[in-house]
Parts: sequence; C-alpha cells; structure tokens
Amino acid sequence: MNTEEVATKLVEFCRNREWMKAIDELYAKDIVSVEPRAMENMPAEMRGIDQVRGKAEWWEKNMEVHNAKVSGPFVARDNFVVQFDVDVTDKGSKKRMQMSEVGIYTVKDGKVSREEFLPLAQKKE
Amino acid sequence: MNTEEVATKLVEFCRNREWMKAIDELYAKDIVSVEPRAMENMPAEMRGIDQVRGKAEWWEKNMEVHNAKVSGPFVARDNFVVQFDVDVTDKGSKKRMQMSEVGIYTVKDGKVSREEFLPLAQKKE
Repeated sequence: MNTEEVATKLVEFCRNREWMKAIDELYAKDIVSVEPRAMENMPAEMRGIDQVRGKAEWWEKNMEVHNAKVSGPFVARDNFVVQFDVDVTDKGSKKRMQMSEVGIYTVKDGKVSREEFLPLAQKKE
Repeated sequence: MNTEEVATKLVEFCRNREWMKAIDELYAKDIVSVEPRAMENMPAEMRGIDQVRGKAEWWEKNMEVHNAKVSGPFVARDNFVVQFDVDVTDKGSKKRMQMSEVGIYTVKDGKVSREEFLPLAQKKE
C-alpha cells in the first residue's frame, strides 16, 4: 500500500474505533510511537508493536469515549497527518476532558513506521 | 522563543494574512520549504528565505483569498502543525477552489527551519 492508502485505512479504522485492528494491520513491528510527554508508567517514546498495543489497551481500559472526531488524512510523500478531537472520561478520576491533537505518521514499506502526537496548544489569555 | 511561542505567533500572523511578516520575523535564513508537488516554475522543495519570500509573493499576486481559516497550533517538542482551509480564486484561470492542507513546521534556535505542506486526501467513491 502507498502512503495515501495506509492513511485512508487508518482513518477508517479510527472512525470505527478499531484501534487494535489499525495496529495489527497497518503498523510495522518496529514502530516508534512518540507522545507529547510521559504519562503514568509510560515513557513518551515507545518502541515496538507490543508496547504500542499496550498503550492502546491502556486507552481502551481507562477511557470512556463519548465522542471522537477523526479528520483527514492530509498526505504527502511518506507522511500523513490525522486530527483527533475526543470527548472522554478518565474512568479512574471520573474527569471528563475534551482533547484535540494531531498525529504525524511516517510510512515505510507500506507500514506505519513512526507516529508522533502533538496536542492543541492551550490559549493564553 | 520556544516552539510554542513561535507557533502561536505564526498562527496569529496567518490569521491576519500577514504572510510576509511571518516569514520576516519567524523564519530562519536557511529555511527549507516543501510543497506536495512542483507548481508552475516552482520546484517542490525551496531553500533559503528569498525563495520562500518569492513563493509568498507569487501567492499574494496570483490568488484572491475569499476566506482563510487557520487552526492550531498543535505543538510538541521541536514541531508544530497548523491547518489551513482556504477559499481562493486563481486570478489567472478565474478558477475558484476550496483547499485544505496542514503545515508541519520544525523550530530550531527559535526560528522556523523547515515547513512541509500536506493536502487533504481526496475522497474516492
């Protein structure tokens, strides 16, 4: 698959909330996944498909998703960008949050080899 | 300025359609600017602030902007992403177009050192 085909499939899976299927079908075994910052027990940078599956499992276990909007993909050469706007409740803290972020994805040999997430900057008044 | 400060300024300039001011104040002299593809008389990749100014001049001279929405910035580490939704008429062909794209920007030493644009993929039915 070329970059646009991988991108279109990933968006499709995400719209159906089939995160694990996206990883299984589209991610390289040696995927590098970079979050904006480390979270509880998880470093900012993860390597390998097992760690990324672990992150998706953590997300599914800990977040109740009320709404998720997936925009894109924006595609050029080996890269694509997808925007995520989610409305979730952290099951542990019961805190409800609206979060926007983009993922920048790199495709190599027909698989996602790198993903990096960038949150929407907070407006300062 | 850190990445978020550069990003916030760039979005502000773009919202005011002050493209040239953004370049003058925020871009590195050796900026690398990458378009999805080559356009008339312009290669996809441009190097140096003079070439990038030339591209901005070409845009201002050739496009009548009816509306421009600038979303973001999304920021992490040295990178930020901005989404542009524009409604323009090409003054030459009189063709009116709605275009969506994102820019991925890299900040180095407080200046934008690289920008890369990715258009929204066309839906295939």
